[in-house]
Amino acid sequence: MRRALAALLIAVLPVAAPADDLRGTGDLGIVIERTTGSVLIVDTTERAAIVRVEGLGDLSHASAVFSPDQRYAYVFGRDGGLTKLDLLTGTIAARIVQAGNSIGGAISDDGLLVAVSNYEPGGVRVFDAGTLEPVADIPAEWDGGLSKTVGLVDAPGRRFVFTLWDAGETWIADFSGEGAPVVTRIGGIGANPYDGLITGDGRLYIAGLFGEDGLTALDLWQERPAPRRILDGYGRGEEPLPVYKMPHLEGWALAAGRFALPAVGRHEVLWVDAVTLEEAGRTATHGQPVFAVARPGGRQVWVNFAHPRNDTVQVIDTLSGEIVHTLTPGPAVLHMEFTPRGHEVWVSVRDADRVDIYDAATFEKLGEIAAETPSGIFFTARAHRTGL
Amino acid sequence: MRRALAALLIAVLPVAAPADDLRGTGDLGIVIERTTGSVLIVDTTERAAIVRVEGLGDLSHASAVFSPDQRYAYVFGRDGGLTKLDLLTGTIAARIVQAGNSIGGAISDDGLLVAVSNYEPGGVRVFDAGTLEPVADIPAEWDGGLSKTVGLVDAPGRRFVFTLWDAGETWIADFSGEGAPVVTRIGGIGANPYDGLITGDGRLYIAGLFGEDGLTALDLWQERPAPRRILDGYGRGEEPLPVYKMPHLEGWALAAGRFALPAVGRHEVLWVDAVTLEEAGRTATHGQPVFAVARPGGRQVWVNFAHPRNDTVQVIDTLSGEIVHTLTPGPAVLHMEFTPRGHEVWVSVRDADRVDIYDAATFEKLGEIAAETPSGIFFTARAHRTGL
Repeated sequence: MRRALAALLIAVLPVAAPADDLRGTGDLGIVIERTTGSVLIVDTTERAAIVRVEGLGDLSHASAVFSPDQRYAYVFGRDGGLTKLDLLTGTIAARIVQAGNSIGGAISDDGLLVAVSNYEPGGVRVFDAGTLEPVADIPAEWDGGLSKTVGLVDAPGRRFVFTLWDAGETWIADFSGEGAPVVTRIGGIGANPYDGLITGDGRLYIAGLFGEDGLTALDLWQERPAPRRILDGYGRGEEPLPVYKMPHLEGWALAAGRFALPAVGRHEVLWVDAVTLEEAGRTATHGQPVFAVARPGGRQVWVNFAHPRNDTVQVIDTLSGEIVHTLTPGPAVLHMEFTPRGHEVWVSVRDADRVDIYDAATFEKLGEIAAETPSGIFFTARAHRTGL
Repeated sequence: MRRALAALLIAVLPVAAPADDLRGTGDLGIVIERTTGSVLIVDTTERAAIVRVEGLGDLSHASAVFSPDQRYAYVFGRDGGLTKLDLLTGTIAARIVQAGNSIGGAISDDGLLVAVSNYEPGGVRVFDAGTLEPVADIPAEWDGGLSKTVGLVDAPGRRFVFTLWDAGETWIADFSGEGAPVVTRIGGIGANPYDGLITGDGRLYIAGLFGEDGLTALDLWQERPAPRRILDGYGRGEEPLPVYKMPHLEGWALAAGRFALPAVGRHEVLWVDAVTLEEAGRTATHGQPVFAVARPGGRQVWVNFAHPRNDTVQVIDTLSGEIVHTLTPGPAVLHMEFTPRGHEVWVSVRDADRVDIYDAATFEKLGEIAAETPSGIFFTARAHRTGL
């Protein structure tokens, strides 16, 4: 059934956009189709798919970043594949398989370097954004061999920051000089950091811990950033709930001076004061949160949930911490992406083969797009934000 | 001499970009050429001008906003002219003269409405972003007739916020419903508000006062926003310095939890705590600040100055409040615009007929562009920010 639907969609959509059609690229985006290794290029103004591009390999847990001109998407597959996609022609501009098992990537602030975080072999590899030629290889060497790397983000000043799952270290790779990158190793992050985020101002890097009950923050504005434990003992593992899905830290929301943070293994969103980094409240939720994403501006936070409660999205009012709306888009809501100024939000409903589009203020459904097992949704405005 | 240079530039630059050249629009921008009524379309990746477009009328004190697809710029002239510029073809897509004397404009969060702030006749007029057909006329009526309007910004939810210079009121025009906009009038803003800003999260609107020694803040997240006086008695007029040029509030920087604010008539940047809105320090500067612009991320604030000290730019470290660098680009530095992730900054040097491009981290000069009396510089990434 699913395969038949996909075939139908492919038949309906053109294979490439007409090359003589001038158009801006600020309102484009992509939808990852995880089981078919394909990507939909979408138009957020028209609320429509433009074209499907196939042949991107294993796209389970895939993510993407964009070139500064917003013409190209760099799609990071799970199988080590790195694909440069031309959004204007709907074609693959370049593609490499750079490792055996990968988890996300980042693009430098000048748009010239693309970095990929690898599990196998453990480390980070950096490529020329134009050609995908290799620029640098940073094996994540520690006492135990090569560590898996997680939480790779870009930081201002041609830097990449990432964390070693096995070693409990965070590394800063600085490409601002000539020649090889300068790598700063910061130990003492904690046991099994599983993901990381950088705040939009490029100042705070925060690693979530799987092996301990807390998180670790680094102030990248300091000469020598020192690890600071936050939310120590917030209750991860306090209750015997199985952890169905690790939450995504890149989705952490900064809203009205507080971070909204999906708790691991709990039916809660945690609030953290952005200045003191102390806990500032909790909101009970429908299930284990996966993404807690602030509507741009931070007036509300939208939350989706882990299996088996993943048909639902809840909207939390930032000022009160109260849930103000609950939607049930359908089976397996995997991701939410706001238009850059926050007036609309796109929601992928994997097992309904559909992306829903909502008015972010009224919650009215404005449209939907057929997609094959959609997961991540990424709009080109990310090109101009740090850490996305 | 200036006219001869302009003629040369026009001869060198092509009159329009080739229409068959596909390109992204995320790295484009415009430079206002104030005395010739022309605009340069620029490419921030190539650090180059692409094409000059003429015939935009009186561009003294001009500003611009961009469509969500980042293909079109809307240029607001001083003479009531509103020009829709196609950045891909280098041509004027539409142009109207909608009033006799204007001061800036804004675009709604959905990109469908463009609003212009008028002195003559006093009020705000709103146009269809596609066609520039009139949508609404909001005369700024008060006891004294029609007020000049200033500080027009967009707010989330298809709203525009602006302030009445003569009446001391701020109005919120809400276009989210069907039919005519709902206008909320808020009195008691103070004597002669001369400009306004909205914070990037769309929450705070702040009006600067010319007739009193302070500013007024409104929390737009409240049901009924009430005016709150801030920085009362900070010293505007305390010293007998003539005010050479009113600072621009749209340039107000939010950095590391503080606003950096150009003081009126003083050689100072004021720091305001973003949560309490209390004064949080002052930095003595080279002259009367005009723009205090945060490098994206807020690590530094760049400041330019009023005549006669306007050949200089100073860079303030946000954490310490200290000046860490002073540049002297040349005569009449009018504006500064950062690339969206803050790695480079463009500086217009009006009386040198030049735009300089600097590395924002090292202060190294990376390039320059010839331009005829350049003033405002606007990059397309503004399309995706609130209040710019």
